[in-house]
Amino acid sequence: MQLDLIKSSLPMLATTPATAESSLVVAAVLLNLVVIYFASKIGGEFSNRVGFPPVLGELVAGVIVGVSVLHLLVMPEEGADSSISLIMTFLQTTAGLSSDTTDAVFTIQSQVMSVLAELGVIILLFEIGLESNLKDLMAVGIQATIVAVVGVVTPFAAGTAGLMTLFGVSAVPAIFAGAALTATSIGITSRVLSELGCLNSKEGQIILGAAVIDDVLGIIVLAVVASLAKDGAVDVGKVVYLMISATCFLLGAIALGNLFNKSFVAIVDQLKTRGELVIPAFIFAFVMAYLAVIIQLEAILGAFAAGLVLEETDKRKELQKQVVPIADMLVPIFFVTVGAKTDLGVLNPAVPSNREGLMMAIFLIVVAILGKVVTGLSVYGQPQINRLAIGVGMIPRGEVGLVFLGIGSSTGILSKPLEAAIIMMVILTTFLAPPLLRFVFPEPKLLAIAQEQLLVYGSNAQETLEVTPKVEE
Amino acid sequence: MQLDLIKSSLPMLATTPATAESSLVVAAVLLNLVVIYFASKIGGEFSNRVGFPPVLGELVAGVIVGVSVLHLLVMPEEGADSSISLIMTFLQTTAGLSSDTTDAVFTIQSQVMSVLAELGVIILLFEIGLESNLKDLMAVGIQATIVAVVGVVTPFAAGTAGLMTLFGVSAVPAIFAGAALTATSIGITSRVLSELGCLNSKEGQIILGAAVIDDVLGIIVLAVVASLAKDGAVDVGKVVYLMISATCFLLGAIALGNLFNKSFVAIVDQLKTRGELVIPAFIFAFVMAYLAVIIQLEAILGAFAAGLVLEETDKRKELQKQVVPIADMLVPIFFVTVGAKTDLGVLNPAVPSNREGLMMAIFLIVVAILGKVVTGLSVYGQPQINRLAIGVGMIPRGEVGLVFLGIGSSTGILSKPLEAAIIMMVILTTFLAPPLLRFVFPEPKLLAIAQEQLLVYGSNAQETLEVTPKVEE
Repeated sequence: MQLDLIKSSLPMLATTPATAESSLVVAAVLLNLVVIYFASKIGGEFSNRVGFPPVLGELVAGVIVGVSVLHLLVMPEEGADSSISLIMTFLQTTAGLSSDTTDAVFTIQSQVMSVLAELGVIILLFEIGLESNLKDLMAVGIQATIVAVVGVVTPFAAGTAGLMTLFGVSAVPAIFAGAALTATSIGITSRVLSELGCLNSKEGQIILGAAVIDDVLGIIVLAVVASLAKDGAVDVGKVVYLMISATCFLLGAIALGNLFNKSFVAIVDQLKTRGELVIPAFIFAFVMAYLAVIIQLEAILGAFAAGLVLEETDKRKELQKQVVPIADMLVPIFFVTVGAKTDLGVLNPAVPSNREGLMMAIFLIVVAILGKVVTGLSVYGQPQINRLAIGVGMIPRGEVGLVFLGIGSSTGILSKPLEAAIIMMVILTTFLAPPLLRFVFPEPKLLAIAQEQLLVYGSNAQETLEVTPKVEE
Repeated sequence: MQLDLIKSSLPMLATTPATAESSLVVAAVLLNLVVIYFASKIGGEFSNRVGFPPVLGELVAGVIVGVSVLHLLVMPEEGADSSISLIMTFLQTTAGLSSDTTDAVFTIQSQVMSVLAELGVIILLFEIGLESNLKDLMAVGIQATIVAVVGVVTPFAAGTAGLMTLFGVSAVPAIFAGAALTATSIGITSRVLSELGCLNSKEGQIILGAAVIDDVLGIIVLAVVASLAKDGAVDVGKVVYLMISATCFLLGAIALGNLFNKSFVAIVDQLKTRGELVIPAFIFAFVMAYLAVIIQLEAILGAFAAGLVLEETDKRKELQKQVVPIADMLVPIFFVTVGAKTDLGVLNPAVPSNREGLMMAIFLIVVAILGKVVTGLSVYGQPQINRLAIGVGMIPRGEVGLVFLGIGSSTGILSKPLEAAIIMMVILTTFLAPPLLRFVFPEPKLLAIAQEQLLVYGSNAQETLEVTPKVEE
């Protein structure tokens, strides 16, 4: 029935793909990509010049082209019809479309852009996996687990208790807001670490490992909270299932991966036509990402696991080199889109619910930052370690925080002020983390190398990887 | 209004992008990509081993996974609901979905896959442009134009006249079928030439140039025929507009491109962050592709022109190297999808309309092949040229033929037998051209080099380009 509705509302698109409407969707996607690429390059280059990680510039440039300022990149999810998107208005004018056709094209192109952004972050995590070493990661496994658990429990407990006692929020919405505080954006953290050249430092490995475990914990917390919001009770069976399947998935991937390693190289060596390395690698990565989605984890975890497994093979260097341009093409779509979806309107004090939410927001932001910074203190047996850097690395909520918010909004249990407060918390933690991380990795040697690397990063990513310093080994 | 209908039918998808449904679309896309990559590698490798161009294997593998055999890759455009797609059934089972959700996911993922396929052929033509030399192409410009015009007029006249006199088809549908005979698939031809290492031979350049001009002519023919079918009269104003805009676009792109060349290199040299070459190049290519769509040409023509312009810069080699993995990732989506959409059911003689159409199909196929093969005879002043190779290079109708058919079907003026006959013609010309081309480029030296190149093609495309023989220079 749903399909019928869609079909009847889009007769041309659904039945004759090769007609004008289909090429208009392509035109709209091309226009979106041009805007995204302009924004990512201008933002990234500017950010790099003033000494910040490029990804911060991409996020800010995304905000500028997005729903908050220029209205070029607007997703219908924000409740806008096509006339609010300047890209669609431009397309409508240049191609001479009717407004009905434009609305239809708008909806479809937005769905396409969402998937492209998602493919971008999948490729990013695959690349991060390829740059990470499984043994190094396992070596810090216990520290990473402790950091992740402390970083989930502290902000969750402090956030929920504070909202209930200080602001009189009732239990279920307070628990939801507390849950949104637990997330860590593995995408933003890992890309900043990679840009600073600190991915393979001990701190970088602990942050990355903790962010992965945090992602898994976050999904379990989400399942708990969602069932609470729905039935008022926790679905214990589902929580146990998620815990078991997540553990099995990560360990199983690594174990099977070690067996699959050699077959992968043997198969690739047999292939003689173009894409003989990148296509088998993507088959593996996408199968893993699919499995992760199916067992209700996130696709990016599967892609990361696939990258980790392939990092163990002899094809590592060649594969890293080939993935670089693909990541360069797809990853900015994700970061600019995250920025574009960020509605800075919630920071406007002229709106009553924002004013009401402001005190809650300040509280949530303090809890969000302190609740993650304390995690650094939980690292034991590493006297030389930069505890502050680890804590700061866990701060950004990014896309994961937005997932929590999206599900919370859809249940209708969050009040407008609380919703605005959560959005402010997600925005600030996401945008503060890149510059903060830049300052808490202060070792002059490391920094000098990192900056030198940034200069050659684009043209010579492969060599960059080779000289990445491994601190304290 | 259309938007409202879509929104009401997809409440979760339209309002909360980060929820389960959105990740299911991603899961479905990942599953499609895995199937496409498997098909492309198995088909391509097998085809290469038995001495045919890999693209033939990709097309055939596409047919096998598509609507004709395995029903893994099925597009809703063929009138199927999600239960006919094995991928969707698999997703439904593994993720435990309702059939309504599955239908909705099916529609959206199909639209995403269509755009990805379209991006694939855009990247392919950009890459072909980067491998082609503008001066070489201009040097054969007049020959290419004559080949294109002869290759449009001959099959159009013979096809239309034959259908009217031999089969008693009335004028408008006969003209439509004649128009479908004029197309040349620039995608298939250029990729086969590239795989045979003949792209930069004089024959290759003439074929490529003629295919580009043919694409422009085809769009004009299509406009004429479509207005004939709609109003019974030719919209002369539109035809003149198309001819002028197409000419201005191609010449303007090249002229402006020569000015833009130096700015491009200067800008790229200023950039210090990742993607400093590939992102500006894609901005240029996508802007050109967008402009081409807006003036009612095809996106691939814009991408090809952009590639040609950037081939003139010092950054050519580095850019070619970086585009290779991106093309490896996206191009197979296009070819496997073309195969998957091909319904071999029209070849089944048990269906009455197929039997009726069979005689017409045989006639159309003969005209389709001979009408293009004769174009080789029109090349003058090149005594040593391989005229057969040029004619054969113009044979495949591919996706362009399907566009004509799609528009013809939507007007309802084509009878079932005639429609089936046109599909058979498109299928056979598309699938015959790669093996035929392989045999009509018989120079032993060239072939030996080409085969040697194929062996190193994937891992060493850059060097391959350097040793590409330029015949008769």
